[in-house]
Amino acid sequence: MTYDPGNIFAKILRGELPAYRVYEDERVLAFLDIMPRAPGHTLVIPKAPSRNLLDVAPDDLAAVAAIAQKIARAQMSAFGAEGITVTQHNEHAGGQEVFHLHVHVIPRHTGIELKPPLSYKETPEVLAEQAARLSSVLEG
Amino acid sequence: MTYDPGNIFAKILRGELPAYRVYEDERVLAFLDIMPRAPGHTLVIPKAPSRNLLDVAPDDLAAVAAIAQKIARAQMSAFGAEGITVTQHNEHAGGQEVFHLHVHVIPRHTGIELKPPLSYKETPEVLAEQAARLSSVLEG
Repeated sequence: MTYDPGNIFAKILRGELPAYRVYEDERVLAFLDIMPRAPGHTLVIPKAPSRNLLDVAPDDLAAVAAIAQKIARAQMSAFGAEGITVTQHNEHAGGQEVFHLHVHVIPRHTGIELKPPLSYKETPEVLAEQAARLSSVLEG
Repeated sequence: MTYDPGNIFAKILRGELPAYRVYEDERVLAFLDIMPRAPGHTLVIPKAPSRNLLDVAPDDLAAVAAIAQKIARAQMSAFGAEGITVTQHNEHAGGQEVFHLHVHVIPRHTGIELKPPLSYKETPEVLAEQAARLSSVLEG
């Protein structure tokens, strides 16, 4: 298993692709999934190159987990969520589509099923509004 | 949100219920899910009381994440997995059924879908064999 620096999250980290960023520190970046399984669906990634859970360095994994918690708490407030579903996929067989480690943090409401992965593309207007709302809670 | 010490994982931690244990240290316990979504499906939990991701202490979360990685790597070898799916559910709306923080670490093989949650109960013989196999890799 190797790391391909041409993956789209590496391009976001290098500023070659835009993203609806909601949180950033020296180790971690969080941004909205543009194909959300529910409104507010956020991805948390390490800045250091890492293919997935199988190769990530311990400090990067700990930082990603801590920020996933921070995002989950903020989503409860920003989106009035009643629960949070976290998923993380490794290798094609495990459901991984982009080969830079990422943790999905997804706000949930009672009785509303998750959309299937990659089934719906959100509009830029909605994503911009959601990113602003979540960022505001994270900065508050 | 409060912690109910009557939940079944708290009972496992207190030794009041059996479990197919595969790993244990001062902070974390890992054991097989008796209703696996795929063979070798393992749960990683903190020993300290924690309802879910929303309330877990940072050190416990970091320890759980580190052991989830250790379990994932061992599953690749022990079960010849081709990938790993990690899920973690918070509150009823997020899919949580047992209210002690747990991370699902699930071995995957290409083309084989996950069983729906709580849809299949594995036999004691198979669980014992899988626990022994995974423990052996973890100790190796």
